[in-house]
Amino acid sequence: MARLMVMYRTPKDAIAFDKHYFETHVPTAKRIPGLRKYEVSRGAVATPAGPSGFHLIATLHFDDLAAIQRAFASAEGQAAAADVRTFATGGADMLLFDSGEV
Amino acid sequence: MARLMVMYRTPKDAIAFDKHYFETHVPTAKRIPGLRKYEVSRGAVATPAGPSGFHLIATLHFDDLAAIQRAFASAEGQAAAADVRTFATGGADMLLFDSGEV
Repeated sequence: MARLMVMYRTPKDAIAFDKHYFETHVPTAKRIPGLRKYEVSRGAVATPAGPSGFHLIATLHFDDLAAIQRAFASAEGQAAAADVRTFATGGADMLLFDSGEV
Repeated sequence: MARLMVMYRTPKDAIAFDKHYFETHVPTAKRIPGLRKYEVSRGAVATPAGPSGFHLIATLHFDDLAAIQRAFASAEGQAAAADVRTFATGGADMLLFDSGEV
Protein backbone atom coordinates (compact mmCIF):
# COMPACT_ATOMS: atom_id res chain seq x y z
CA MET A 1 0.00 0.00 0.00
CA ALA A 2 1.07 3.58 -0.58
CA ARG A 3 0.01 6.69 1.26
CA LEU A 4 -0.49 10.29 0.27
CA MET A 5 -0.47 12.45 3.37
CA VAL A 6 -1.78 15.98 3.13
CA MET A 7 -0.83 18.02 6.16
CA TYR A 8 -2.78 21.27 6.40
CA ARG A 9 -1.17 24.00 8.43
CA THR A 10 -3.39 26.12 10.65
CA PRO A 11 -5.61 28.19 8.32
CA LYS A 12 -6.69 31.78 8.76
CA ASP A 13 -10.27 30.73 9.53
CA ALA A 14 -10.60 27.23 10.92
CA ILE A 15 -14.40 27.20 10.79
CA ALA A 16 -14.48 28.19 7.12
CA PHE A 17 -11.75 25.64 6.42
CA ASP A 18 -13.66 22.80 8.04
CA LYS A 19 -16.90 23.71 6.29
CA HIS A 20 -15.22 23.74 2.89
CA TYR A 21 -13.13 20.66 3.65
CA PHE A 22 -15.96 18.39 4.66
CA GLU A 23 -18.71 19.78 2.40
CA THR A 24 -16.72 20.30 -0.79
CA HIS A 25 -13.20 18.89 -0.68
CA VAL A 26 -13.98 15.42 0.68
CA PRO A 27 -16.64 14.70 -1.99
CA THR A 28 -14.25 16.04 -4.66
CA ALA A 29 -11.27 14.01 -3.45
CA LYS A 30 -13.30 10.83 -3.03
CA ARG A 31 -13.79 10.78 -6.80
CA ILE A 32 -10.03 10.35 -7.38
CA PRO A 33 -9.49 7.06 -9.24
CA GLY A 34 -7.55 4.41 -7.31
CA LEU A 35 -8.33 5.88 -3.87
CA ARG A 36 -8.82 2.90 -1.53
CA LYS A 37 -9.35 4.60 1.82
CA TYR A 38 -9.48 8.20 3.03
CA GLU A 39 -8.82 9.07 6.64
CA VAL A 40 -8.73 12.47 8.32
CA SER A 41 -7.66 13.62 11.74
CA ARG A 42 -10.44 14.51 14.16
CA GLY A 43 -9.89 17.30 16.67
CA ALA A 44 -6.47 18.72 17.44
CA VAL A 45 -3.24 17.53 15.84
CA ALA A 46 -0.79 17.68 18.74
CA THR A 47 2.83 16.99 19.51
CA PRO A 48 3.95 15.51 22.84
CA ALA A 49 4.95 19.08 23.82
CA GLY A 50 1.73 20.83 22.75
CA PRO A 51 0.18 22.32 19.58
CA SER A 52 1.63 21.16 16.27
CA GLY A 53 0.78 24.01 13.91
CA PHE A 54 -1.19 21.54 11.79
CA HIS A 55 -4.95 21.86 11.63
CA LEU A 56 -5.83 18.65 9.81
CA ILE A 57 -4.00 15.64 8.43
CA ALA A 58 -5.52 13.61 5.62
CA THR A 59 -4.19 10.16 4.73
CA LEU A 60 -5.21 8.82 1.33
CA HIS A 61 -4.52 5.14 0.69
CA PHE A 62 -3.65 3.77 -2.75
CA ASP A 63 -2.39 0.40 -3.95
CA ASP A 64 1.09 1.68 -4.81
CA LEU A 65 3.08 4.78 -5.78
CA ALA A 66 2.17 4.34 -9.45
CA ALA A 67 -1.50 4.64 -8.50
CA ILE A 68 -0.72 7.93 -6.72
CA GLN A 69 1.03 9.22 -9.84
CA ARG A 70 -2.00 8.25 -11.93
CA ALA A 71 -4.26 9.96 -9.38
CA PHE A 72 -2.27 13.21 -9.64
CA ALA A 73 -2.53 13.05 -13.42
CA SER A 74 -6.28 12.36 -13.50
CA ALA A 75 -8.92 15.04 -14.04
CA GLU A 76 -10.37 14.22 -10.60
CA GLY A 77 -6.93 14.58 -8.98
CA GLN A 78 -6.33 17.89 -10.73
CA ALA A 79 -9.74 19.11 -9.55
CA ALA A 80 -8.92 18.13 -5.97
CA ALA A 81 -5.51 19.84 -6.15
CA ALA A 82 -7.10 22.99 -7.60
CA ASP A 83 -9.66 22.93 -4.79
CA VAL A 84 -6.91 22.72 -2.13
CA ARG A 85 -5.55 26.04 -3.37
CA THR A 86 -8.91 27.70 -2.62
CA PHE A 87 -9.19 26.80 1.07
CA ALA A 88 -5.73 25.82 2.43
CA THR A 89 -4.97 29.36 3.56
CA GLY A 90 -2.21 28.21 5.93
CA GLY A 91 -0.56 26.02 3.31
CA ALA A 92 -0.40 22.27 2.96
CA ASP A 93 2.53 19.84 2.91
CA MET A 94 2.21 16.62 0.92
CA LEU A 95 4.17 13.44 1.50
CA LEU A 96 3.93 10.21 -0.46
CA PHE A 97 5.47 6.88 0.34
CA ASP A 98 5.03 3.14 0.23
CA SER A 99 4.05 1.72 3.59
CA GLY A 100 4.00 -1.68 5.20
CA GLU A 101 3.23 -3.21 8.56
CA VAL A 102 6.10 -4.34 10.80
CA MET B 1 -8.61 5.09 16.36
CA ALA B 2 -5.72 7.41 17.18
CA ARG B 3 -2.38 7.71 15.47
CA LEU B 4 1.11 8.55 16.65
CA MET B 5 3.21 9.56 13.67
CA VAL B 6 6.97 9.66 14.06
CA MET B 7 8.60 11.48 11.19
CA TYR B 8 12.35 10.92 11.06
CA ARG B 9 14.36 13.56 9.25
CA THR B 10 17.24 12.42 7.05
CA PRO B 11 19.90 11.02 9.42
CA LYS B 12 23.66 11.40 9.16
CA ASP B 13 24.08 7.73 8.19
CA ALA B 14 21.02 6.18 6.59
CA ILE B 15 22.42 2.64 6.57
CA ALA B 16 23.22 2.74 10.29
CA PHE B 17 19.80 4.28 10.94
CA ASP B 18 17.97 1.52 9.08
CA LYS B 19 19.97 -1.24 10.77
CA HIS B 20 19.23 0.15 14.23
CA TYR B 21 15.62 0.95 13.37
CA PHE B 22 14.62 -2.46 12.13
CA GLU B 23 16.86 -4.62 14.36
CA THR B 24 16.46 -2.75 17.64
CA HIS B 25 13.84 -0.03 17.58
CA VAL B 26 10.98 -1.96 16.00
CA PRO B 27 11.21 -4.84 18.52
CA THR B 28 11.44 -2.29 21.35
CA ALA B 29 8.48 -0.23 20.15
CA LYS B 30 6.33 -3.28 19.47
CA ARG B 31 6.33 -3.96 23.21
CA ILE B 32 4.49 -0.69 23.92
CA PRO B 33 1.17 -1.51 25.60
CA GLY B 34 -1.93 -0.61 23.61
CA LEU B 35 -0.16 -0.59 20.23
CA ARG B 36 -2.63 -2.04 17.71
CA LYS B 37 -0.74 -1.68 14.44
CA TYR B 38 2.68 -0.39 13.44
CA GLU B 39 3.37 0.76 9.89
CA VAL B 40 6.54 2.22 8.42
CA SER B 41 7.34 3.83 5.11
CA ARG B 42 9.31 1.73 2.64
CA GLY B 43 11.76 3.43 0.33
CA ALA B 44 11.82 7.16 -0.23
CA VAL B 45 9.44 9.61 1.40
CA ALA B 46 8.76 12.10 -1.38
CA THR B 47 6.78 15.25 -2.05
CA PRO B 48 5.12 15.89 -5.42
CA ALA B 49 8.08 18.22 -6.16
CA GLY B 50 10.88 15.83 -5.11
CA PRO B 51 12.72 14.77 -1.92
CA SER B 52 10.97 15.50 1.36
CA GLY B 53 13.83 15.66 3.85
CA PHE B 54 12.21 12.80 5.75
CA HIS B 55 13.93 9.43 5.80
CA LEU B 56 11.22 7.30 7.38
CA ILE B 57 7.69 7.78 8.67
CA ALA B 58 6.27 5.46 11.30
CA THR B 59 2.55 5.34 12.05
CA LEU B 60 1.57 3.70 15.32
CA HIS B 61 -2.11 2.92 15.77
CA PHE B 62 -3.84 3.01 19.16
CA ASP B 63 -7.48 2.82 20.22
CA ASP B 64 -7.63 6.47 21.29
CA LEU B 65 -5.56 9.41 22.50
CA ALA B 66 -5.76 8.22 26.10
CA ALA B 67 -4.07 4.98 25.02
CA ILE B 68 -1.25 7.04 23.46
CA GLN B 69 -0.85 8.97 26.72
CA ARG B 70 -0.66 5.69 28.64
CA ALA B 71 1.86 4.39 26.11
CA PHE B 72 4.10 7.44 26.61
CA ALA B 73 3.93 6.92 30.38
CA SER B 74 4.69 3.19 30.26
CA ALA B 75 8.15 1.72 30.87
CA GLU B 76 8.08 0.28 27.34
CA GLY B 77 7.16 3.68 25.87
CA GLN B 78 9.93 5.38 27.82
CA ALA B 79 12.41 2.76 26.58
CA ALA B 80 11.32 3.35 22.97
CA ALA B 81 11.61 7.14 23.39
CA ALA B 82 15.08 6.76 24.94
CA ASP B 83 16.09 4.53 22.05
CA VAL B 84 14.94 7.16 19.49
CA ARG B 85 17.45 9.59 20.97
CA THR B 86 20.28 7.16 20.18
CA PHE B 87 19.69 6.77 16.43
CA ALA B 88 17.54 9.69 15.16
CA THR B 89 20.57 11.78 14.26
CA GLY B 90 18.53 14.01 11.93
CA GLY B 91 15.80 14.58 14.49
CA ALA B 92 12.25 13.28 14.64
CA ASP B 93 8.90 15.07 14.68
CA MET B 94 5.96 13.45 16.44
CA LEU B 95 2.29 14.11 15.77
CA LEU B 96 -0.68 12.56 17.54
CA PHE B 97 -4.31 12.77 16.61
CA ASP B 98 -7.60 10.95 16.49
CA SER B 99 -8.41 9.71 13.02
CA GLY B 100 -11.47 8.46 11.20
CA GLU B 101 -12.49 7.37 7.74
CA VAL B 102 -14.53 9.74 5.57
